[in-house]
Amino acid sequence: MNSTLQNLLTGIRVPDPSWRQRAQDRLNQLTKPVGSLGRLEEVAAQMVAIQETMSPAIAAKSVYVFAADHGVVQEGVSAYPSEVTRQMVLNFLNGGAAINVIARKAGANVIVVDAGVDGEFDHNPGLVRRKVRRGTRNMLHTPAMTEDELHAALQLGAELAESACEQGVNLIAVGEMGIGNTTSASVITAALTDQPASKVTGAGAGLDSAAIQHKVRIVEVLLKKHDLSSSVDAFHILRCVGGFEIAAIAGMVLASARLRIACVIDGFISTAAAAIAYKLQPHVREYLFAGHQSQEPGHKLLLDLMGLSPLLTLNMRLGEGTGAVLAFHVIEVAVNLFNEMATFAQAQVSGATSS
Amino acid sequence: MNSTLQNLLTGIRVPDPSWRQRAQDRLNQLTKPVGSLGRLEEVAAQMVAIQETMSPAIAAKSVYVFAADHGVVQEGVSAYPSEVTRQMVLNFLNGGAAINVIARKAGANVIVVDAGVDGEFDHNPGLVRRKVRRGTRNMLHTPAMTEDELHAALQLGAELAESACEQGVNLIAVGEMGIGNTTSASVITAALTDQPASKVTGAGAGLDSAAIQHKVRIVEVLLKKHDLSSSVDAFHILRCVGGFEIAAIAGMVLASARLRIACVIDGFISTAAAAIAYKLQPHVREYLFAGHQSQEPGHKLLLDLMGLSPLLTLNMRLGEGTGAVLAFHVIEVAVNLFNEMATFAQAQVSGATSS
Repeated sequence: MNSTLQNLLTGIRVPDPSWRQRAQDRLNQLTKPVGSLGRLEEVAAQMVAIQETMSPAIAAKSVYVFAADHGVVQEGVSAYPSEVTRQMVLNFLNGGAAINVIARKAGANVIVVDAGVDGEFDHNPGLVRRKVRRGTRNMLHTPAMTEDELHAALQLGAELAESACEQGVNLIAVGEMGIGNTTSASVITAALTDQPASKVTGAGAGLDSAAIQHKVRIVEVLLKKHDLSSSVDAFHILRCVGGFEIAAIAGMVLASARLRIACVIDGFISTAAAAIAYKLQPHVREYLFAGHQSQEPGHKLLLDLMGLSPLLTLNMRLGEGTGAVLAFHVIEVAVNLFNEMATFAQAQVSGATSS
Repeated sequence: MNSTLQNLLTGIRVPDPSWRQRAQDRLNQLTKPVGSLGRLEEVAAQMVAIQETMSPAIAAKSVYVFAADHGVVQEGVSAYPSEVTRQMVLNFLNGGAAINVIARKAGANVIVVDAGVDGEFDHNPGLVRRKVRRGTRNMLHTPAMTEDELHAALQLGAELAESACEQGVNLIAVGEMGIGNTTSASVITAALTDQPASKVTGAGAGLDSAAIQHKVRIVEVLLKKHDLSSSVDAFHILRCVGGFEIAAIAGMVLASARLRIACVIDGFISTAAAAIAYKLQPHVREYLFAGHQSQEPGHKLLLDLMGLSPLLTLNMRLGEGTGAVLAFHVIEVAVNLFNEMATFAQAQVSGATSS
């Protein structure tokens, strides 16, 4: 295995399970019936385990929005033209997109990354310019990217995770923008779960039912052409049918697990990238939170594959990191409850008399 | 009907449906696929309709935690002794409970109300002292409250809603604390939905399965003794088997609808109170948001009765208003998205080419 890939997979370890137990012991002493904070207790215990401290803290928060284009859009798989990717990047930079609004409310930085947009940007200091190529190749004819391109995109995500870590960011969300990228996510999902194309293919940004049928056929052709299934190496799947934004997210998920940073995944595309990382190194799941469950049919299959349960279910299907950053609030509240609630002893509250 | 009750039910109107349509028209122009913000779009449109403005705003937020005791606790229906109600009120006043932590994060005021705690409080300027009585009567032997007590409790909630309105608060949550009050909520739910006691009775703060069976039998006896069903007047149900905190919440839900204030209901008890209000005046649902879905089995039945869908499902079962205030974030983000996102025209983003 190439050294870039090998480096990405090394140094990721499972948190010491004793931290979760210590966290649960404290949660059981807080002034509430045992277990009554539900998922919030699980989240708090996971943050304790990730940070290996009984005083977990969220120091700084960032969402990375990786943008890239897809050669397969030539096949009519999206309701929107490719130029929307570039237009939406400008919208992100101007602060007018949904992710900007949600991140402002969350107090999170938005870092916009050109991982492979098929268009150029004028001088724009807010943009991280790391274009691997102007869009992937049309994967109906050839693998979406070369090995070098795959390595560059993975490395991009890993380097940004390292930079986040150096800046003291310890809660990140991985979002994306890329017209056509639900097609990549559908093929990846079919391959990783061995499910038929019809079970993993949805409306994306807004296809009608005839157009969804066309997309299903394209996904079927892609699976066959590249001979993909769950027994194929996940890096190979990513190279054949991924996108630069998807590979960058996979790199970021792997590196954030190595760096012990909590990482919140977003919708179908972001989760497909995380599932590639999970297939390569299952320990990454210990550092992941599933922000929400999208309306895309393949999303739940991927969450189930990783054994993750979404924090929110609001029928969103927008991407950009929106569902992930919305879930930051749940994670922050969970940490605050853990740190700030009084114990039964401190508050002089009586415990249960029965059960 | 008594004039207190009559006043509570008058002046509540359905928002003009044209506001929802205008809201949806704007949502469809924002830079995202149509409908892709899911529930957030519904929430934004509901806030536009409640406030009757295309610039909805959340000016100030409060959670009301109504505390009261229950005579039926003598029958062994709770895992905790009655004195925990008073102890938890002190915990709320000292800022150590879950609701304090969640409200701090949300920037919401916590208003703690003694609606009928079976115990006295020393001087404590933070407490709203409106004790109707030291706990309800044991409803196994007699109606839980007299008519005058019912009116006092309803009036308490209504007056606090008016006070909130005068202070410019336009997003409120209704929470409660009262050892034994899931028994009241279970009887109310069985009565309003005509479901058997076994379908609406759960573990409360933490009963084991034998104790739950005992609680089911108590609920059955209460339904029979007071001859309750969905054909009985809801004020009568409330008087026979409610609590002072439940009646106060019902009063607050009715008054906040009249005052056009958005009101977020919490778990099983808070929702049982709202369902009483809904039965008396179904228009209240236009002003309600269901903060979350609790683990208590009767909660979903009540939400279904009112046609409400929870914003969060995090397996919480704590009460205090915790799930409701956690959901403030979703409502605020929805309002911000509506107000702050760029339109396709403003951002010069291309629209869909198909579908």
